[in-house]
Amino acid sequence: MREDSYYMRLALAEAQEAYREGEVPVGAVLVMRGEVVARDHNRTERLKDPTAHAEILCLTAATHRLGAKYLPEAVLFVTLEPCPMCAGALAWAQIGEVVYAAPDPERGFSRYVPSLLHPRTQWRQGPLQEESLTLLRRFFRERR
Amino acid sequence: MREDSYYMRLALAEAQEAYREGEVPVGAVLVMRGEVVARDHNRTERLKDPTAHAEILCLTAATHRLGAKYLPEAVLFVTLEPCPMCAGALAWAQIGEVVYAAPDPERGFSRYVPSLLHPRTQWRQGPLQEESLTLLRRFFRERR
Repeated sequence: MREDSYYMRLALAEAQEAYREGEVPVGAVLVMRGEVVARDHNRTERLKDPTAHAEILCLTAATHRLGAKYLPEAVLFVTLEPCPMCAGALAWAQIGEVVYAAPDPERGFSRYVPSLLHPRTQWRQGPLQEESLTLLRRFFRERR
Repeated sequence: MREDSYYMRLALAEAQEAYREGEVPVGAVLVMRGEVVARDHNRTERLKDPTAHAEILCLTAATHRLGAKYLPEAVLFVTLEPCPMCAGALAWAQIGEVVYAAPDPERGFSRYVPSLLHPRTQWRQGPLQEESLTLLRRFFRERR
């Protein structure tokens, strides 16, 4: 298993791709035993689909690819703290761990009670917080 | 606009279809100005996709069909109280109203604080609670 920052850089590259496409710049990478099994970024505008968050797209791609509904050995690296929808999806998949770069005090899952994640899911704030926030701030400054 | 029970019967028919397919029997119908624009049922087993709940499938179908990210004029009729994932998706879509048949005290969105729905979304428990619960209980008694 490589270091967290390796996988988070891949997630950040996805966020940068989202930025280039005019999407809210969030990216995610789903890793199992060190191998990247899915990577994607926010596509809500392109797909006109409010559920097309990076986390959901990675989760769906991974479950399709692996033919599994549950992913207790998977780690999701994502550049922004997941929203309640994504946390709920990650809970159904019983994902092993969630590592996010930038906290989201307004819409992040961690402010909800009771916990939105599965009881066995670990989660923490990880590397590249500043890089992720800088990209998000630039996007919203230009757009809104 | 027809009565609630008309639309909830359509949602229940979707739940019965899910039951026949070996899926957790939950169905949903999305209505705009009295017209059914999407109807579907839980497909998590068939699609090996933990996000393939009736509500998400209806929401995605409706936004695709209408080319709209937001659905403030839509009413979702669903046979079971939505989970946090679905509530989070309905929040992003700013859906106008959610009517559910059976409450879900264990996994339902309404036990979470702060609210998982959009501030402008109305919600209530509606008709056919017993019919929906009977179908769900039969499914879990046979399967688990």
